[in-house]
Amino acid sequence: MSLQIDEQGKLKHFLSIDGLSQTILTDILNTAESFAIIPEQSIKKVPLLRGKTIVNLFFEASTRTRTTFELAAKRLSADVLNINIDASATAKGETLLDTLRTIEAMHADMFVVRHNQSGAAHFIARHVRPHVSVLNAGDGSHSHPTQAMLDMFTIRRHKPEFSRLRVAIIGDVLHSRVARSQIIALNMLGVHEIRIIAPKTLIPAEPHCLGVHVYHDLQTGLKDIDVVIMLRLQKERMQGAMLPSEGEYFQLYGLTEKSLAYAKDDAIIMHPGPINRGVEMTSAIADGPRSVILQQVSHGIAVRMAVMSMTMRSGANAPGDH
Amino acid sequence: MSLQIDEQGKLKHFLSIDGLSQTILTDILNTAESFAIIPEQSIKKVPLLRGKTIVNLFFEASTRTRTTFELAAKRLSADVLNINIDASATAKGETLLDTLRTIEAMHADMFVVRHNQSGAAHFIARHVRPHVSVLNAGDGSHSHPTQAMLDMFTIRRHKPEFSRLRVAIIGDVLHSRVARSQIIALNMLGVHEIRIIAPKTLIPAEPHCLGVHVYHDLQTGLKDIDVVIMLRLQKERMQGAMLPSEGEYFQLYGLTEKSLAYAKDDAIIMHPGPINRGVEMTSAIADGPRSVILQQVSHGIAVRMAVMSMTMRSGANAPGDH
Amino acid sequence: MSLQIDEQGKLKHFLSIDGLSQTILTDILNTAESFAIIPEQSIKKVPLLRGKTIVNLFFEASTRTRTTFELAAKRLSADVLNINIDASATAKGETLLDTLRTIEAMHADMFVVRHNQSGAAHFIARHVRPHVSVLNAGDGSHSHPTQAMLDMFTIRRHKPEFSRLRVAIIGDVLHSRVARSQIIALNMLGVHEIRIIAPKTLIPAEPHCLGVHVYHDLQTGLKDIDVVIMLRLQKERMQGAMLPSEGEYFQLYGLTEKSLAYAKDDAIIMHPGPINRGVEMTSAIADGPRSVILQQVSHGIAVRMAVMSMTMRSGANAPGDH
Repeated sequence: MSLQIDEQGKLKHFLSIDGLSQTILTDILNTAESFAIIPEQSIKKVPLLRGKTIVNLFFEASTRTRTTFELAAKRLSADVLNINIDASATAKGETLLDTLRTIEAMHADMFVVRHNQSGAAHFIARHVRPHVSVLNAGDGSHSHPTQAMLDMFTIRRHKPEFSRLRVAIIGDVLHSRVARSQIIALNMLGVHEIRIIAPKTLIPAEPHCLGVHVYHDLQTGLKDIDVVIMLRLQKERMQGAMLPSEGEYFQLYGLTEKSLAYAKDDAIIMHPGPINRGVEMTSAIADGPRSVILQQVSHGIAVRMAVMSMTMRSGANAPGDH
Repeated sequence: MSLQIDEQGKLKHFLSIDGLSQTILTDILNTAESFAIIPEQSIKKVPLLRGKTIVNLFFEASTRTRTTFELAAKRLSADVLNINIDASATAKGETLLDTLRTIEAMHADMFVVRHNQSGAAHFIARHVRPHVSVLNAGDGSHSHPTQAMLDMFTIRRHKPEFSRLRVAIIGDVLHSRVARSQIIALNMLGVHEIRIIAPKTLIPAEPHCLGVHVYHDLQTGLKDIDVVIMLRLQKERMQGAMLPSEGEYFQLYGLTEKSLAYAKDDAIIMHPGPINRGVEMTSAIADGPRSVILQQVSHGIAVRMAVMSMTMRSGANAPGDH
Repeated sequence: MSLQIDEQGKLKHFLSIDGLSQTILTDILNTAESFAIIPEQSIKKVPLLRGKTIVNLFFEASTRTRTTFELAAKRLSADVLNINIDASATAKGETLLDTLRTIEAMHADMFVVRHNQSGAAHFIARHVRPHVSVLNAGDGSHSHPTQAMLDMFTIRRHKPEFSRLRVAIIGDVLHSRVARSQIIALNMLGVHEIRIIAPKTLIPAEPHCLGVHVYHDLQTGLKDIDVVIMLRLQKERMQGAMLPSEGEYFQLYGLTEKSLAYAKDDAIIMHPGPINRGVEMTSAIADGPRSVILQQVSHGIAVRMAVMSMTMRSGANAPGDH
């Protein structure tokens, strides 16, 4: 049985897109839709998680991701506790499991976990008490499922029929947990075609097993594309000689008015942020009419509210015996 | 048209005292008066900003100022997000504008900005979306308008008729954003006379344009004074040879029972804190009956609540299209 | 008159177990009992301290203790302000008293103080305004009264009749503020016998004045024991040659199935955390059926809620004249 789904088939943890059905993914998107309306009203708060304690357990710094999880939790009226694990008892030699058990004993209801090791969120989910839910906020190079779902949400708002879409993911697919989660989600939601466009050194092994087509040339790869997803260039990769210089990278894979002309006229441009302007794309593209990059940030809150409220609705979340 | 005032003449941003009318300043003081009563009641919270998200965007550390803004926001029932910008995505090379757009996309309603560069808050105010308000919590050596207004509030509580008052500002006026904002506010509120008392190296160029009288001698300057405002001595200035030693400074400009005798008997003593005891004044003066230094801190919360609620009432603050 | 008790005999500050009556201690335990039920309900929040501002004033880092105080305050609906004093105005040379007065002027209602100097919380309590309460969250090697009371609470839940109990405290009693507070509380609550088990270098001077029996041998000391309290081994002590190596310490004083067999069959095992597994005890003991270590963490929140609500009920807490 899946770790993420409870006996009633409901979402219990949200660890990776892998293993979730199209029904669950669509349910997340629909629930997020109901929260995406809230900021337009005068009162943004909903009392769904009032009295719940959500712990942001960040072993890896990330202002952007932590902040959107914190805002999502507060808009659901939960109490939020930010724990930067470097500053905590691990410095005294406490093991991860002891740290976990200790925070759990403070009656935490949910852990939002970010860790530089793949599998960390799964490990934690296997060890928490029955009433606790775990959300993966990025683990190593493995998975970043809430980022993938906010991307799906953003795509659906502009292009509602997944089955007609051609989507291109451009950049360092090999090392990207975001790309890995996006590809699985796009396949599960039934898009017509997924392409990855990158130099050979940044393509994962056996890409056909991922259900993607590989292009090394930007112009060919962009032909007939509806959705362009740029990945962030991790500059530290360049030292390992896996990448040419920034300038060369921009020449080959940077998005410009010229290269974008090969995609469909109404193609949307996405990027998980923060952008390296002049490397992944020009500023004109980043700030242009087809860019939906800031909408991705906004939708991140709605999608995180959705996943938080869905996992807390899971039947196993009746208060436990502490 | 002023950046701070909207089309209906209401306060939209609060960036500097410069450019605000006496009516607006008096409105801030009167609104603060209504909040200054709240702590005496059993319940301090008012729901005026419930559902609003206020972001403390601090590019420069300041526990005291950040804390009073945070408390003001919480007492208005807003959600508060503290972002220390050193620890955020700017480390990854994100530009200020991208950081701003990203936080804005999280449905922030207000930015409280502190920055070591003059004009930073104005820059941000010019670039935020229509429904967002910006409050300046100190920018370089330019402006610190909430500090100036809490000082005005404290003065008015003790000396209600501004037109009769003689106010002396003592210390490093040249480099003080606090002094700059105070002088403009005191002039706009119509005080009888403003004096600055400092060594020649710490007097701004062309002081007569500021509407102040200059004194280099403490005793002469204090004659007939109703309100004594001490500035904090920035010790790093002394290395630049702009200042004598601490001991000499205290001899010349330090407030003591003896020098204070030249001011009016009921003169009040103010200081923005933290005090260098034995440098700007003796402990006996700092803790004495005429000192209103701790009242300034208390009033800081009421004044910040006032500015927050007034800018959020501005007509342009209808929820935008995100 | 005691600093901790007001004129009506109610708890005003909570600084040390020393000086509190059995009635007060029992009152704390009974009040905590009412809060220990709350997490089982669907809504954990109670509005007892709504509108109150509680300031965590931590001069010494401690994620675990700060977090449980923060959660306790939030579950009582108070606003919480975390102030790490290293990062604050003290860096600018402000004295402790000025820092205190400043935060107090922000209408703080309660200070939770942790400091590496013995007596710091008492000093602060002597200097705050009448309406403010002070809770000691650990001061030097002196006192850690909320930790002691959560231990008493945990003991009472398992062994309700204190007068029948034999309790053993094992480890570095000499330097432990936790042990010091526990011993006073256990005596005041009338336990039958308190033993301390440690090498000679870690036994306080004149232990008979503390009302304890001293053992240097673990097996003899554990005979007929109902409650085993392990102290955390401070590894830095070993450099001072006060302690043998970790391995030797474990051989002599580490809790194992074998040594624990000398205690009563239903003896419970306690530890303030974080545990050094394989030093103070084996993992089998730490995670075994007689360990109540995680319950201690849970009870820490209930006990802190109790002390917070009791001190805020004190008659002197009517809003002051700011």
